[in-house]
Amino acid sequence: MSNMSKFIDLTHTFTDHMPVYPGDPCSRLYQSAWIKDGGPADHRIESCMHVGTHIDAPVHMIEGAATIDEFPIEKFQARGVLVDARCHTLLQPDILNTQTIHAGDAVLIYTGWDKKFRTDEYFASWPYFSPAFANRLVELGISLVGMDTAGPDIEEPFEAHKILLPSDILIIENLANLDELLEIKDFTFHAYPAKYQADAAPVRAFAEIA
Amino acid sequence: MSNMSKFIDLTHTFTDHMPVYPGDPCSRLYQSAWIKDGGPADHRIESCMHVGTHIDAPVHMIEGAATIDEFPIEKFQARGVLVDARCHTLLQPDILNTQTIHAGDAVLIYTGWDKKFRTDEYFASWPYFSPAFANRLVELGISLVGMDTAGPDIEEPFEAHKILLPSDILIIENLANLDELLEIKDFTFHAYPAKYQADAAPVRAFAEIA
Repeated sequence: MSNMSKFIDLTHTFTDHMPVYPGDPCSRLYQSAWIKDGGPADHRIESCMHVGTHIDAPVHMIEGAATIDEFPIEKFQARGVLVDARCHTLLQPDILNTQTIHAGDAVLIYTGWDKKFRTDEYFASWPYFSPAFANRLVELGISLVGMDTAGPDIEEPFEAHKILLPSDILIIENLANLDELLEIKDFTFHAYPAKYQADAAPVRAFAEIA
Repeated sequence: MSNMSKFIDLTHTFTDHMPVYPGDPCSRLYQSAWIKDGGPADHRIESCMHVGTHIDAPVHMIEGAATIDEFPIEKFQARGVLVDARCHTLLQPDILNTQTIHAGDAVLIYTGWDKKFRTDEYFASWPYFSPAFANRLVELGISLVGMDTAGPDIEEPFEAHKILLPSDILIIENLANLDELLEIKDFTFHAYPAKYQADAAPVRAFAEIA
């Protein structure tokens, strides 16, 4: 990375009682040791994986597939392409025509939904992928897809997940601040997960502008 | 980042029942939902922060100081300098003389101790910093210090932590694979934490070789 790069953090801060997907268990991140008691401070997390800004691995939906720790560092960075999906409820492939997308790219779906994060509206509904939209991303051979919503699917059977993940297109959910990329022509997307032997992991996602 | 870069992952894989600092509570990372039950897989973590490869923020030791989420992306990357500290038990400033260290650098202390990770030996003892060594790092104005051991201190009152953290020198503990940097002249060190509002967080640490 160049010292001249500018970075835009695309990650929601993970706080105690993070909003969780409807029906998922409560998420906790709380102080568990205090300096006033004579030692260092510590915090403890008790949370499932699909909370806050995180990345899904294939085994989230496919029995026996790869966990997130099995992917190399190279997998977590790619040329970024922002797709403006405001004013869309069900995403269809035609909105991809506004951009040049290459194999290996990271496609980020901007809806503005992140501004509802930590309100009841966030999980009440959100723009989601049609199967045709997910299939088009597979045809394009992209490497990563991210969105500023709870995910590419709004209900079971999670069809978009099941189209994307078998092609090792990893999914970054609950991104923040994609609006800051609207005027940016060239950027690299980075999303580095904790190296958890798990079906998903919290991720530090950011854009690097040359 | 250039597509020509090579990456060396410096992060231990986080598994269930990770080794913890003596006296710390048990760490769990386990499957909590199964595809065979009709929905997606999920995992759950129940762990304190100072487990596996992680980064300490100033509030770990200083009441009211910054949590890890308060630092910008720029803080988590720097020119890397590897210091070969094999055959040393108590680190003194003279071993820094073998390297040219600039303000803003990330200094990585290589001891080879990571090969003992997941054995009883790892936490039985380890090479640690003298106060003079920690003070020299502060004088040099470095930004990050990392080590392939449990940390810069071996016992209370955690003197090296208390010298480093007030200068915003963040500490990356339990690194892996530093031996792979021995023959590398120029590299950038990266260590991106989960954006936890906490005194520390799991980090994805790696070296980028131009």
